[in-house]
Amino acid sequence: MQEVAIAGIGQTKIEEHWEKSLRELAGEAALCALEASEIRRVDAVYVGNMMSSSANNQQHLGPYIADWIGMRYSEALRFEAACSSGAAAFRAGVMAIASGELESVLVVGVEKMTDSPGDEITAALATAADADWEVDQGITFVALNALIMRRYMFEYGWEKKDFAPFSVNAHANGAHNPNARFQSPISEADYLRAGMIADPINLMDASPMGDGAAAIVLLACDSPFRKPDQKKVKVAASAAATDTIAAHSRTEATWLKAAEQSSRQAYAQAGLTQTEIDFFELHDAFSIMAALSLEACGFAERGQAPRLALEGEIRPSGKIPISTRGGLKARGHPVGATGMYQLVEVVQQLRGEAGETQVENARVGMAQNIGGSGSNIITHILKSE
Amino acid sequence: MQEVAIAGIGQTKIEEHWEKSLRELAGEAALCALEASEIRRVDAVYVGNMMSSSANNQQHLGPYIADWIGMRYSEALRFEAACSSGAAAFRAGVMAIASGELESVLVVGVEKMTDSPGDEITAALATAADADWEVDQGITFVALNALIMRRYMFEYGWEKKDFAPFSVNAHANGAHNPNARFQSPISEADYLRAGMIADPINLMDASPMGDGAAAIVLLACDSPFRKPDQKKVKVAASAAATDTIAAHSRTEATWLKAAEQSSRQAYAQAGLTQTEIDFFELHDAFSIMAALSLEACGFAERGQAPRLALEGEIRPSGKIPISTRGGLKARGHPVGATGMYQLVEVVQQLRGEAGETQVENARVGMAQNIGGSGSNIITHILKSE
Repeated sequence: MQEVAIAGIGQTKIEEHWEKSLRELAGEAALCALEASEIRRVDAVYVGNMMSSSANNQQHLGPYIADWIGMRYSEALRFEAACSSGAAAFRAGVMAIASGELESVLVVGVEKMTDSPGDEITAALATAADADWEVDQGITFVALNALIMRRYMFEYGWEKKDFAPFSVNAHANGAHNPNARFQSPISEADYLRAGMIADPINLMDASPMGDGAAAIVLLACDSPFRKPDQKKVKVAASAAATDTIAAHSRTEATWLKAAEQSSRQAYAQAGLTQTEIDFFELHDAFSIMAALSLEACGFAERGQAPRLALEGEIRPSGKIPISTRGGLKARGHPVGATGMYQLVEVVQQLRGEAGETQVENARVGMAQNIGGSGSNIITHILKSE
Repeated sequence: MQEVAIAGIGQTKIEEHWEKSLRELAGEAALCALEASEIRRVDAVYVGNMMSSSANNQQHLGPYIADWIGMRYSEALRFEAACSSGAAAFRAGVMAIASGELESVLVVGVEKMTDSPGDEITAALATAADADWEVDQGITFVALNALIMRRYMFEYGWEKKDFAPFSVNAHANGAHNPNARFQSPISEADYLRAGMIADPINLMDASPMGDGAAAIVLLACDSPFRKPDQKKVKVAASAAATDTIAAHSRTEATWLKAAEQSSRQAYAQAGLTQTEIDFFELHDAFSIMAALSLEACGFAERGQAPRLALEGEIRPSGKIPISTRGGLKARGHPVGATGMYQLVEVVQQLRGEAGETQVENARVGMAQNIGGSGSNIITHILKSE
């Protein structure tokens, strides 16, 4: 099996890109990654996207984007796994190169959400949950997460203010990321006075939507097309697992079984334990998801992730830095693109290109992308070579 | 690289399944394939689907279906490449096993189109074309194909009646397929008097939509889980290519460049020429697409496919049998499932289980799935071992 290397990365700022079409947005990130890799032609273009069907009246993003970036005739596909669509496309690219079937793959995650009215986006996000058993009963995606957070607070005795450090850390880090949607730090007081969306989730627990694209060119580690002068990052593990799509069908509401399973598989593939992970780009779509991810992946005892955050251990200087470039909370969450942003940010850290929020001696980074309320969880570990 | 084998197949009849939900439909085909393979657990569930977002208000079909069929916690993803979504999912399954990353994959194509009003389905189908440059200008998907057919008739001098054999052959074969949507033969007269949809495409040139699901379990050829007593079929080639998403941007309107490219790659992978293909399950969404596919894949001279059909060479007893189980025209075209139906039918032929329309001594079969008006074309060659 071929080892897989990162040859180039690209990303756009996340904001309201009303002046750009979906293909222009994807193209910007993709061409940047191609230029960085110094490769002119790839065998395949893999696109991660969740909601272009409803938000942009456009499906079939494979050829739509491949042609736009000058890759006409190459293989081109779209992957959809709700908010984990980006990592799903990346994983497929890794497997295609590992199999020896393809030599080079450009993976691009893209989402353009802000052209549509908010209620249409709320409906589109709800397609990640169970249409018959959740959505038709009237629950939104935020409300599903609020039920989980409420239960977690009840079980472990945490109060609302104990979740503030997740949001404060994300915004502090995002302030130094020029591609982040929000680049202003917030205080605990800001967190506590934010408007409630679905009790106990307030505006500062929830990640913002946005328009954005992030891309990576993948090659085999021994490809003759790799640049010898570039600091090398390789894929050490790729693992995916699912759980029930409906949150109420799970054995336990406050445990991400699919995160536990895919992170365990990833540790085994990479031949390490979680103590060797230097930083963790997790899926903090809501504060509660950051807490549950830390626990399921072994970084905190069950029910104790808020303590880790309160003790400052999730900051860039802490034991397990998370959301080092702002996370979903501050960098933004253009849903189908998010998984690719996380991976691009891991590469930046491993190359020592993360500026003010650089994690010292970062050699092993993990990215974890969650689809639905925990129903699809894809974990990647990247390493400096 | 691991060689990949077919371990089991399953399919539902294509019709208006108003009594079944999307997951029940997918589950029926998937559980049938699992039972046939005698495997209880797969590493991954790969789903091909085009339009569940709009037609069923449900995305994230990976965990949605995996959980329903008892594969909770396994990897599960959805692949979208418009009408070639089925073959896209199958190709990903082949690569995952070839890479050694996964040991077993269940691939299921599913589409449930008849719960929605016709105009919504017409709009959903149009998302396979270019939203900005085609659809917003007012053209439907049928009209795009009509432009191509009109041009072909003009360039090569064929008349409307010369396309009758494609439809007559498909319906003659579908009459013997218990899973086909239409099981009645038609005559040339029936073809000629059918109502016009978008001149020159009439109702008998166009494939019907429908609800359906088809599934295949894939294993490595040397897997210990394969049944020794089952006639063995393996994947000899898998190749994909794209063209511009907008038909008017192509160099030539009447040549399927992506079919040419992916079939050439497939012949090279399988180590054969098109003369060794015993039958061809092609993508006859419209008669013109059957003609163009035969030419691009080397079975007819350019502009001469209607002659092949008029001479009877596309029938089960002919030189290159096509649509042997009814094709898209008579078996039906539940868009994201179609690619999987084609592959299931190739397996049936190679196992000698195709009944009245069995191709004699069928040892090498090709399936080709087209997305958009020729913008995404995926070719597979299967062989008896």
